[in-house]
Amino acid sequence: MAGGSGTRFWPASRHQRPKQLLPLAGPRTMIQATCDRLQSLVAAERTHVITARHLVQAIANQLPQLPPENIVGEPCRRDTAPCVGLAAAIVAADDPEGVMLVCPADHVIHDHDAFAKAAHLGQDTLENHPDAIITFGIRPTYPAESFGYIESGEAVRESEVLNVQQFREKPDAETAQSYVRAGTFYWNSGIFMWRAATILEALGKHEPIMHDHLQTIAASIGTRSFASTLENEFKSIEGKSIDYAVMERHERVLVIPAPFDWDDVGSWQAVSRLHPTDDVGNVAVGTHVNIDSRGCIVHGDPDHVIVTIDTEDLIVVQTGDATLVAPKRSEERVREAVAELKRRGLTERI
Amino acid sequence: MAGGSGTRFWPASRHQRPKQLLPLAGPRTMIQATCDRLQSLVAAERTHVITARHLVQAIANQLPQLPPENIVGEPCRRDTAPCVGLAAAIVAADDPEGVMLVCPADHVIHDHDAFAKAAHLGQDTLENHPDAIITFGIRPTYPAESFGYIESGEAVRESEVLNVQQFREKPDAETAQSYVRAGTFYWNSGIFMWRAATILEALGKHEPIMHDHLQTIAASIGTRSFASTLENEFKSIEGKSIDYAVMERHERVLVIPAPFDWDDVGSWQAVSRLHPTDDVGNVAVGTHVNIDSRGCIVHGDPDHVIVTIDTEDLIVVQTGDATLVAPKRSEERVREAVAELKRRGLTERI
Repeated sequence: MAGGSGTRFWPASRHQRPKQLLPLAGPRTMIQATCDRLQSLVAAERTHVITARHLVQAIANQLPQLPPENIVGEPCRRDTAPCVGLAAAIVAADDPEGVMLVCPADHVIHDHDAFAKAAHLGQDTLENHPDAIITFGIRPTYPAESFGYIESGEAVRESEVLNVQQFREKPDAETAQSYVRAGTFYWNSGIFMWRAATILEALGKHEPIMHDHLQTIAASIGTRSFASTLENEFKSIEGKSIDYAVMERHERVLVIPAPFDWDDVGSWQAVSRLHPTDDVGNVAVGTHVNIDSRGCIVHGDPDHVIVTIDTEDLIVVQTGDATLVAPKRSEERVREAVAELKRRGLTERI
Repeated sequence: MAGGSGTRFWPASRHQRPKQLLPLAGPRTMIQATCDRLQSLVAAERTHVITARHLVQAIANQLPQLPPENIVGEPCRRDTAPCVGLAAAIVAADDPEGVMLVCPADHVIHDHDAFAKAAHLGQDTLENHPDAIITFGIRPTYPAESFGYIESGEAVRESEVLNVQQFREKPDAETAQSYVRAGTFYWNSGIFMWRAATILEALGKHEPIMHDHLQTIAASIGTRSFASTLENEFKSIEGKSIDYAVMERHERVLVIPAPFDWDDVGSWQAVSRLHPTDDVGNVAVGTHVNIDSRGCIVHGDPDHVIVTIDTEDLIVVQTGDATLVAPKRSEERVREAVAELKRRGLTERI
C-alpha cells in the first residue's frame, strides 16, 4: 500500500514525491526498504504495489526488480479498504487461495529476520485457520494517541497468536494510558495477513456495494479494458478504511504480537528517532554546522550547508526550492503552510 | 573604498561576493548604488574604486560604465589609511589639487540630492580652506556603541561647517548616551573630502614610512611596473585606519553635519530596517510564507519558498548552497559559524 500523500513531510515530501518515495530513515527510500524487507518472503513477481496513479512511474523507477504491471495506480484516493480489495482481486485472479501479506510502504522495521519470523508464523496460522484475518500488533512503548489499538483476548491454542477482543479507535491521553497499563493492548500497525478469498468474502459480507465494484474490476483483470474499468469503478467506490470496513466487524480476527521494531515515521520528530542524536539532542541529515543549538532536527541536501546558531527544538528542512523553519511543537502546522502555498498558487512547491 | 569582507552577511556574502557586491538594500548592489549616488557629482572616468584584488573582476562587471583601469585591487588587506593613500596617489598623479570625495562602497543613502548638496558644500569649503580635511558627520538617532563619534566645536565663520574638537572611539553605552544628550556629537560616517595633496601631506607628516611606500607606488603609476610595485610596496605597509593615522592627529579637520539619511548596513538587523515590515515585525526579501511568525528576517532567492511557522525574532537566510538560522540576538555569532566552516574545510562556502 503506497498511496499516501505525506503532507507532513513538506518540503521534503511533495505531491509528486511523497514520504514513501523518500529516504527518510536511511539510504533506501521507504518503499525500497519495504520491498527489501519482503525479499526473503515474496518473489518479486508476486510483489504488488497499489499506489496513486501519478506515482506509478516514480515507484517503478525505484523498484526496477518488480514487473511493471505489478504496480497499479488508483485513479483516485479511496482510503485503505478499496486498496486492499483491489490488491485481493489482483491476487485472487491468479490464485484465490493466495496468501497476502499487506504492508504499508512507509513504515520502518529494521529487524528483517524478526519480521520474516512473524510472517512465517502468520502463514502457519493460516494453514490451521484458513479463514482467519491476521493483524500484527505492536506492543506500545508509550501511551500514543495517534494510533488505533487492538485489545487482545485468549491465545489461540498452543501458539503465540492471540484472538482479537476488540479494535479501539485513537484514544485520548487518559484512555491511552489505561491501555498501556492493561498490558493486553497493541498498536494497530496496519500490517495484515489473510488469504485473498477471505478478505474478498469479508468485503462481500460487510461492504457489498464496494465488493460489487471490485468484482467488476476483477473480471477485467488481464483484459484490454482493465484500465478503463478500474477508472470507472474505483471512482464509484465509497472511501473507507479497512479497519472500519472489515477489521472492526469481522468475527475471526487474530493478532500476532510483533517481535520486530516498528515506526510509522509519522512526522519530522519520528524521523529524528531514526537517526543518531548528538549529545545535546540535535539530529542532522545533510551538512549541519552547529553553533550551540540544541534539540534541533536539521534535514537538507548533502551538498547544502545548514548553519544553526543558538536555536532550540527547531525543525529546519531545506530542499532545492523550499525551506521550512518551525519549532518541533508546531510540526502539525506544516499542513497549514502547504494549504497557504496552494492558496497563493505556488502549486509547483507542494 | 570597496575592500570589505562582510563576514556578517554570510551566507549571502562570501569571500568572492562580499556585502558591497550584494543588493542588500534594493535592486542595485551596494557598490552600484554608491556609484549611482556619485553620478551627478563625478564623471565615470574620475570615479576610482580601491578594492581587494580578488574582487576587481566582479566589481568591473557590476560597474561597466567605469574605465577598467579605475578599479584597483589591493594585494592584501591593510585597513583604510593605505587604501586612502593609494587612491590619493592615483588622483594626484593626474592632478595634485584634485578634490577627492571618499565613500565606503557599502553604505545606504537614499537622498541623492541632499548628498550632492553636502558634497557641494564640501567643495565650496575647500575653496576657502584648501588645506582642510573634511569629514561628514551623521546626527545620532540612538546611542550606538558600534560607531566612532566626532565631537564638533565652533562653526566655521558664516557656514554650516563645524570645526572638529575631537574624534572619539566607539564608546560604551553610558558614554554613548552622554554623547547623544550633548547634541554636539556626530557619528563618524567614514565619508571624507580633501584635496589629494592635503591627505598625502598629512600621511607624510603622521605616517612617514607609509608615505614612503605610497610615494614609490605613485612613481610607478602609468608605467609597466605598477602592478609589481604595488604588490611589493603595499605588503610592506603597516595596516592602520585613516582615523588613527590622520583624522585623530590632524589639526585642521572640519565636519559637515550630513543633511542626508545614512545607514552603514552593518548586520542583518540593519538590512531589516531598509525593507518594509509587516504588521507583526517580519521583513522578507524573497518568497516568504508566514504562519504566525513574528519579528523575523527572512532573506532568500526569489524563486525559493521559505516557510516559517510560529518562529519569533529569527533570522533565516537561504542561498543556493548554504542556509543560516539564528535568533536576531545571536547575529554577531555568524562570524563563529564562518570560522567553523573554515575549520571543517568547507571553504567553498565562505
